[in-house]
Amino acid sequence: MVQNLGNHLIVELYDCCPKAINDVSFVEAAMKNAVAVSGATMVQSVVHEFNPHGVSGVVVVEESHFTVHTWPEYGYCALDIFTCGTEVDYYSALNSLKEDFKAKNLSVSEIKRGILDLPIRLLHKPEKRIENITEQAV
Amino acid sequence: MVQNLGNHLIVELYDCCPKAINDVSFVEAAMKNAVAVSGATMVQSVVHEFNPHGVSGVVVVEESHFTVHTWPEYGYCALDIFTCGTEVDYYSALNSLKEDFKAKNLSVSEIKRGILDLPIRLLHKPEKRIENITEQAV
Repeated sequence: MVQNLGNHLIVELYDCCPKAINDVSFVEAAMKNAVAVSGATMVQSVVHEFNPHGVSGVVVVEESHFTVHTWPEYGYCALDIFTCGTEVDYYSALNSLKEDFKAKNLSVSEIKRGILDLPIRLLHKPEKRIENITEQAV
Repeated sequence: MVQNLGNHLIVELYDCCPKAINDVSFVEAAMKNAVAVSGATMVQSVVHEFNPHGVSGVVVVEESHFTVHTWPEYGYCALDIFTCGTEVDYYSALNSLKEDFKAKNLSVSEIKRGILDLPIRLLHKPEKRIENITEQAV
C-alpha cells in the first residue's frame, strides 16, 4: 500500500512585518509557539541572527523540523514545516506563524515525503521493527 | 528584475545503507562534511536519535540549512538542502550525502525560494540596506 512517511509544507510568507521578522527573540518564540500549537514535541531550537538583519530559526521536533529564514529588508520569510506521523496539526502551526509575522500574502505547497509501497500500516518511528534493519557495513 | 533568494533541494534518498543512516555519529559527520564540501559555513548542528532507530540531523548554516531525517527500517532518508547566495555548491553536498549513505536511488526537486521582483542586484544578506527596514510595530 502506497503511503507517505512525512508531510512537508513549503511556505513563502510575503509582506511580513519587518521589525517582527528581524527580532531573533520574537522569531524564536513564534516558532516555539507554532510547535506547541501544532502538538509537535520540541527537541531543540537554534536561532541565528544575521548582521545587519535577518534571522534563521530552526526547531528540531520529534516529528521532524520547523525552519524559517527571514529577509526583513524584503518583508519575506521562507518557512518549512516538515512533520511525520498523523498527530501534528501542521496547518495550525502555519496559521500561527502567519499571524505572528503579520504576513499579508503567502503561498503554500504541500509535499508528501517518503512515499513508499509498504504492505503494512505505517507507524511513526515504529517501535518493534528493529530486527528488520540489515547489518550492512558502513 | 525577478530573482530568487534561495535554492532548495528536496531530496528523497532510497535504498540507503540501514546501518549508516541509523548511526547518529555517522549521520552528523556526513552532514557536516557535506556542508564543508559545498562551501557553506556551519553555524550549529543538532542531531536526534530515535528509539529504537532513526536519526534527525539538522545543520544550520550561514546560508540557511541542511536537514535529514532517516528511516533505517525502510532504507529511506528525507534530505533538504536549502541555501542562499551564489557561492554554495549544493549539488556537491547532495552527491556527498548520496555516497555516504550509499543510496541506490534518489529523486530530487529543486525549488526556487523567495522569488521577488526587485530592481536591484540581489546580495546575500546585504550589508548596507538596514536603512530600508521599516520600523513597524510588532
